[in-house]
Amino acid sequence: MHRIKYAPYKDKVQSAEKASLLIKNHHILGVSGFTKAGDSKAVLPKVAERALHEELKVTVLSGASLGYDTDANLAKNGALQKRMPFQADATLRKSINNHEVLYVDQHLGQTADMLQKIDSFKIDVAIIEAVSITEDGYIVPTTSVGNSPIFVEKADKVIIEVNTSFPESLAGIHDIKLLKKQPHREIIPILNSDTRIGDSFIKVNPEKVAAIVYTEIPDSPAVISAPDEKTEAISKHILSFLEKEVDEGRLTESLLPLQAGIGKTANAILSGFTNSRFKNLTMYSEVLQDSTFDLIDSGKLLFASASSITVTQSCSDKIFNDFEKYKSKLLLRPQNISNAAEVISRLGVIGINTAIEFDIYGNVNSTHITGTKMMNGIGGSGDFARNGYLSIFACPSMSKEGRISHIVPMVSHTDHTEHDVDVLVTEQGLADIRGLAPVERARVIIKNCVHPDYREQLLQYFEEAYQLGGHTPHILKNAFSWHEEFKAHGTMKMETFANTTV
Amino acid sequence: MHRIKYAPYKDKVQSAEKASLLIKNHHILGVSGFTKAGDSKAVLPKVAERALHEELKVTVLSGASLGYDTDANLAKNGALQKRMPFQADATLRKSINNHEVLYVDQHLGQTADMLQKIDSFKIDVAIIEAVSITEDGYIVPTTSVGNSPIFVEKADKVIIEVNTSFPESLAGIHDIKLLKKQPHREIIPILNSDTRIGDSFIKVNPEKVAAIVYTEIPDSPAVISAPDEKTEAISKHILSFLEKEVDEGRLTESLLPLQAGIGKTANAILSGFTNSRFKNLTMYSEVLQDSTFDLIDSGKLLFASASSITVTQSCSDKIFNDFEKYKSKLLLRPQNISNAAEVISRLGVIGINTAIEFDIYGNVNSTHITGTKMMNGIGGSGDFARNGYLSIFACPSMSKEGRISHIVPMVSHTDHTEHDVDVLVTEQGLADIRGLAPVERARVIIKNCVHPDYREQLLQYFEEAYQLGGHTPHILKNAFSWHEEFKAHGTMKMETFANTTV
Repeated sequence: MHRIKYAPYKDKVQSAEKASLLIKNHHILGVSGFTKAGDSKAVLPKVAERALHEELKVTVLSGASLGYDTDANLAKNGALQKRMPFQADATLRKSINNHEVLYVDQHLGQTADMLQKIDSFKIDVAIIEAVSITEDGYIVPTTSVGNSPIFVEKADKVIIEVNTSFPESLAGIHDIKLLKKQPHREIIPILNSDTRIGDSFIKVNPEKVAAIVYTEIPDSPAVISAPDEKTEAISKHILSFLEKEVDEGRLTESLLPLQAGIGKTANAILSGFTNSRFKNLTMYSEVLQDSTFDLIDSGKLLFASASSITVTQSCSDKIFNDFEKYKSKLLLRPQNISNAAEVISRLGVIGINTAIEFDIYGNVNSTHITGTKMMNGIGGSGDFARNGYLSIFACPSMSKEGRISHIVPMVSHTDHTEHDVDVLVTEQGLADIRGLAPVERARVIIKNCVHPDYREQLLQYFEEAYQLGGHTPHILKNAFSWHEEFKAHGTMKMETFANTTV
Repeated sequence: MHRIKYAPYKDKVQSAEKASLLIKNHHILGVSGFTKAGDSKAVLPKVAERALHEELKVTVLSGASLGYDTDANLAKNGALQKRMPFQADATLRKSINNHEVLYVDQHLGQTADMLQKIDSFKIDVAIIEAVSITEDGYIVPTTSVGNSPIFVEKADKVIIEVNTSFPESLAGIHDIKLLKKQPHREIIPILNSDTRIGDSFIKVNPEKVAAIVYTEIPDSPAVISAPDEKTEAISKHILSFLEKEVDEGRLTESLLPLQAGIGKTANAILSGFTNSRFKNLTMYSEVLQDSTFDLIDSGKLLFASASSITVTQSCSDKIFNDFEKYKSKLLLRPQNISNAAEVISRLGVIGINTAIEFDIYGNVNSTHITGTKMMNGIGGSGDFARNGYLSIFACPSMSKEGRISHIVPMVSHTDHTEHDVDVLVTEQGLADIRGLAPVERARVIIKNCVHPDYREQLLQYFEEAYQLGGHTPHILKNAFSWHEEFKAHGTMKMETFANTTV
């Protein structure tokens, strides 16, 4: 019991099952967890279980995605009325696309603000994972901060899950500040990745704490595929581009704070910095993957700020067995601060995110398959792409043995408009579209990024559209013909171009 | 000559024609001017004239749109290679859509940053309108600040147009600060609309000042159509919505700082506040139209911050003949500060902008006619819609005697994604889509905003798409069928629905 340093809480310790009974039908829950890190591993799964046997439908707000099968079981058992602001679970995804669950896909930096603005989004119960509880009854989070501070602030009741699988030495890496609602919103005085502006715990009125549950289940480990030829090529193109920026005097070898999305491509890109000429790097990101810790080990990375740590089992073993080595180089912040427009624009973050597809004018789809089916969600990509110093989007030029081109005439769903995209990159090459008009962008994107198998087909679309005129040439009736072709014939390759390889 | 208080400049006074000779073929020009206010009225028109007789092609960067026929003549005479970040001229628009002029349509708050980042965008000559010149040789702008400070900073040579048509008492309403490039970017310490953070003039190295020209041509006056039934209905819906926000305790009767786009609809909306219960209002906007000064006169508006003043002739007569009355209630800022993500998010600006069309899921097109032809440009709408407290978009439900519906199945070009739109309004009604999933949004938008003539047709699209499943239901092959129908038959009304009026 030594992790609970506030005596009055000791009577509140109970089983996850009992604590889960605090959650009633139609409740709105605010739960900790961001990219599978620091999520509820005991109480929320029990809510899913209960829904098997009773009428229990809740709205679940989180930081970002949850770990294990929590979202899957909530969805499968019909426990979800609405889910926001992000998810990345295959089962839940299916329920969303079947209209069984309402999903609100939000810029991750904006959910806390929405909660402050719209009072009807009252949180009935917050479920927050903690590594320990302070002498004042305050919550020390685990591997993520996410939206937990605002959930705790707005909740009627708070359930704390004290997770003993994490070392207590995690205490101290959090930097937590609850921003005031406008018109009293204060300056966020972060001038560097390592600026500390708040407390190392989440303040809570102890009277709201309704239950405390012990767990010892670690975070569900990230599974990251090893870099392959394509992701390594993408990484090289980005490094060469950044080297050129340095050579031409626009950036220094320390660049500016880096942000990278989650997944294999982002991890491979960051890993590329290990053997680069860049040095004294910093990160101002939302999630820290294995590559961050490799960069710290290699001495390349001085400091990393984010909202969560999501790593593989082996990386987890490495860092939590020797946490003092990393502790002074890390800060975890609430996601409305890790992703704050104010800070991202001030620091000049270099944002590197992945696209599902992009089009010849630089619009990016990062959420919807063929314009209709939700994949995961926009996440924080928009917070960084809009407000950072450089906005880079990467994806392979094609997939499914060449049946899908990830560069299309028109994206089937727009998450990031042409105005918010500076650089596009595939394994084929990189297009720097800063300061270019749409028709200039189309030419450089087709030339540099598109797979040769699709280049001629895309060029033909563009040239035909160009003849029709217009600032942004399109043939509306054919704009989605590639997506339709894929649905009809299983490939985006048109008959006429079937044997083309330029 | 008393407007030039710096003696060494007096030898530099010359004719506009002579000064225009400083501009050479392929030059990049940075010119003052924002929504027709404070633009170059002598030298830039001479550049257009010269292009009639000699090979002279230049890139022109401005704050926003220019006045009179300057953009038209530059385009007509073939003087434009590239134009950014905004325009609103019918002749230039045609040249852009014919691919005679390359146009880069940017978030107005981001051009200054782009100039700092990309050194290749060096400014050869800046042409800046001034009301006077200080004892140190610094420039006091006229009715706009726009991007002038960064243009002056980056320019090799500066031409100043001293415009004696404006009262010298304009001096003092400007608040000018040049932000440093990252990683040295400072906090923008604006906590209220009226916070002053800089100088009342643009600093310039006097050695760069190559010519000074006198003019006495006033700004080209704004022409604003009177409110009509539709714009008045839109205004009423917005006021009722805001009253409800107050009643439910989310806002006070002072609301939060208002931003309104330019034009008839925006002006009508703001005018609506005159006879409302709201009081002690403030504005943190980019352009101030007639309605701002009416609101000051009525005592409703305490303070207005923007980057320009663009008013009709009668309003201009009113304010410049009695400028002391308004002076203490106004500040004009550089557009990267009037439109700064940092400040807009901190103050919690309520952004009210106009759409060309929006779709059933809340995506907004504010730039392109049928997805291809540029109208004006995105302007600052994105700066406010993304970062403000509330993002409202308005347009009539239909136009061209009902042949065009402004609510369509899918927007033909996306400027503002579903993530950045809180409220949509037409004369039919208002849809509050905050916190709603796409299918919920579709139902409230179709019910509240669509004209009855199109309601059934749109509902049918949605219901058919819904049957196919997907988080954001669409029938890709029909997504633009309304636009195609309009091109083919001059109306978006499908045969089947020709006689429908619900």
